[in-house]
Amino acid sequence: MAIITLTSDFGLKDHFTGATKGAIYSELPDVNIVDISHNVSPFSIPEAAYIIQNAYSSFPEGTIHIIGIDSEINPENKHIAVKLDGHYFICANNGIMSMICSEIVPEKIVEINIHDKIQTSFPVLDVFVKVACHIARGGTLDVVGKTINSIKPIKNIEPFVNDDKTQIVGSVIYIDNYGNVVTNIKRSFFESVQKGRDFEISARNYKFKKIHLKYSDIVNFDIPAEKRQDEGRKLVVFNSGGFLEISVFKSNPSTVGSASTLLGLGIMDAVSVNFSASSVIAKSQIALDGRI
Amino acid sequence: MAIITLTSDFGLKDHFTGATKGAIYSELPDVNIVDISHNVSPFSIPEAAYIIQNAYSSFPEGTIHIIGIDSEINPENKHIAVKLDGHYFICANNGIMSMICSEIVPEKIVEINIHDKIQTSFPVLDVFVKVACHIARGGTLDVVGKTINSIKPIKNIEPFVNDDKTQIVGSVIYIDNYGNVVTNIKRSFFESVQKGRDFEISARNYKFKKIHLKYSDIVNFDIPAEKRQDEGRKLVVFNSGGFLEISVFKSNPSTVGSASTLLGLGIMDAVSVNFSASSVIAKSQIALDGRI
Amino acid sequence: MAIITLTSDFGLKDHFTGATKGAIYSELPDVNIVDISHNVSPFSIPEAAYIIQNAYSSFPEGTIHIIGIDSEINPENKHIAVKLDGHYFICANNGIMSMICSEIVPEKIVEINIHDKIQTSFPVLDVFVKVACHIARGGTLDVVGKTINSIKPIKNIEPFVNDDKTQIVGSVIYIDNYGNVVTNIKRSFFESVQKGRDFEISARNYKFKKIHLKYSDIVNFDIPAEKRQDEGRKLVVFNSGGFLEISVFKSNPSTVGSASTLLGLGIMDAVSVNFSASSVIAKSQIALDGRI
Repeated sequence: MAIITLTSDFGLKDHFTGATKGAIYSELPDVNIVDISHNVSPFSIPEAAYIIQNAYSSFPEGTIHIIGIDSEINPENKHIAVKLDGHYFICANNGIMSMICSEIVPEKIVEINIHDKIQTSFPVLDVFVKVACHIARGGTLDVVGKTINSIKPIKNIEPFVNDDKTQIVGSVIYIDNYGNVVTNIKRSFFESVQKGRDFEISARNYKFKKIHLKYSDIVNFDIPAEKRQDEGRKLVVFNSGGFLEISVFKSNPSTVGSASTLLGLGIMDAVSVNFSASSVIAKSQIALDGRI
Repeated sequence: MAIITLTSDFGLKDHFTGATKGAIYSELPDVNIVDISHNVSPFSIPEAAYIIQNAYSSFPEGTIHIIGIDSEINPENKHIAVKLDGHYFICANNGIMSMICSEIVPEKIVEINIHDKIQTSFPVLDVFVKVACHIARGGTLDVVGKTINSIKPIKNIEPFVNDDKTQIVGSVIYIDNYGNVVTNIKRSFFESVQKGRDFEISARNYKFKKIHLKYSDIVNFDIPAEKRQDEGRKLVVFNSGGFLEISVFKSNPSTVGSASTLLGLGIMDAVSVNFSASSVIAKSQIALDGRI
Repeated sequence: MAIITLTSDFGLKDHFTGATKGAIYSELPDVNIVDISHNVSPFSIPEAAYIIQNAYSSFPEGTIHIIGIDSEINPENKHIAVKLDGHYFICANNGIMSMICSEIVPEKIVEINIHDKIQTSFPVLDVFVKVACHIARGGTLDVVGKTINSIKPIKNIEPFVNDDKTQIVGSVIYIDNYGNVVTNIKRSFFESVQKGRDFEISARNYKFKKIHLKYSDIVNFDIPAEKRQDEGRKLVVFNSGGFLEISVFKSNPSTVGSASTLLGLGIMDAVSVNFSASSVIAKSQIALDGRI
């Protein structure tokens, strides 16, 4: 059975998501529809890109992903369908796909051209659903669009490295449900610049010299539980998506606070990494198994 | 496979929605359950009516819609099942259905009478699910209730027109996820009063003389993108449901603001349309294809 | 078809829930995945326990419940799978299951031991999904873990009764979507202490002498609707889960207020019941059918 996922800024109150699912079932009675997120901030292309990038690869190959962010068609915002990594993506050509495409080369991109038959102010319902159901029935991308070779880039999404490679300046691209602050610095990129050197991560007035792989790595379990004071401690991890993230242990944005609220870090704020001149044993700094 | 949709004010934290789905699966293993919305404001009948009215018709005929708003049974709040437009609706007789029924005559209405067997403080779970599964298995409405001929009207939901038809006074019935302000003035009604005349829409101190059909119709794409200042511009559209809506281009209630926050418009606030005396070419005022 | 439910503190914006569902579909194409809640307050074990306890029994026997709260594995937080009441539960051994287990004896508990093959910072995705799909395919618990005989208790979740049984002191364990204040005093427990005596319930400065079974029981339907002033009235009910709950009739936390906001009651606040010395006819105090 085909799987169609939905990612949008529709929110969870309005009728948009329900109507979209109804339209899918009207075309395709046997299908699994899965919500990835409808709480993307309105018109936030970087947030949508971050979410879909971290979710899609858990799904089986052949899954069709509808992304409804800033999808009203106009002369500068065309609709595209992309095949990449065995998955299909249907969205506006507004930068969302370029975050994923920067890491994996798409197998095929088409600019959707079925609009001459459709006059709509709700393109997810009227256009994206039709394309998704066409693909789910085994149809090819060539039937719904003409091949193009490049897509619109997403702006300011890559971290900056200085010429002598002693500094990475990244930025905050996402704040998650726990108030964790996610940067655009991926582990593979970090390690390619680090090359075994010591480092210091700076975010506002806070400094970190270690990157953990699990949140509870900061807990010393030799101390009795009632004597520990780990809740609220700040730490840096590579999160499950591989992004450098500043976190607060057992944070809750609406009670004890979170990395975002406690450090005062919001979307687009800078996070920098300074590398020391001399090379050391890198593994001692990245706490691979939480036992260091 | 039967489709059962859920619309409620249960919110998305409590166990109510999950328990309802569990009860459906316990009766009916093969069914598609679709959430339309659980974020209706508590006890808000107009909001629920607006959402279900805009969502239901995208689903295939035969779909069963459970609406759990203010559904506790008491001498003034009976339960009904309605067949309308090929769809089934199960809800309390509290006005929710009358917004839809004002446009489409129901095929059949029954007052549910299976309660003598059920003592409950959770009627969606204990009564509505039973009725829905009965219908999904091919059962008739006559088995679960007795036919009635009218339902409780929803109050103050229709716009007002003055005697000489120079003015419509509508009101705000819904604020959507983007902060767009939706009025109770439908396009068909608007045009039946307008009859080709110029008009001016008033909402607080703001005036509008044009109604668009797409949000980006206000953008002049001949101007280079970096010189435009369209984000944050106010406009009026007929939205995808056909309702007159006051909008802000690329709005976000929690950052740049929205029509609701920037114009100070909330639920039940007045929005009026004044028509000029003389008839003109109406089409020049309604931007049908966004090219005017 | 197997049913797998999801309860977590992931929220509804991030990719975590979508990725988890993708992982399930990758292992098991034919499955019904049902969200119970993803809006548990971050790391709140009592909230998760309350929600799952009230939702699970509506599902058919054999349903598999994944609970993703505070699930990062560490020396003090092992993963368990529990068979109880015909249902399967997969979660961390952090107290969540003990609220359910205090009422129903588990048929089997295993401590999951498949971690040697899995290095993960996202255990719901990498461990719980694997265990759930194993069970869904008919696998036994013995294959994924070793039997244990007890689980970690949840703290401070039981109400206190004084020695001469004249007082119950309970506490608030949950605030629902309507702002209703749910206590840890269950009906069966209440009645076992009451033994037919009059009572007075105290919460801050408010006193109640009656417990209703339906919210609208407080309405006198002999008075014409326009003369009633019931909205906003405070009352006590046993809710649909059987918990003693302080409520406000037709409450809405963001407009007219709710029991939580109007009485100033939050999580962990005390609610006490004082019983009079002499025994009376109990039934006159518990409004079983709302006609008293």
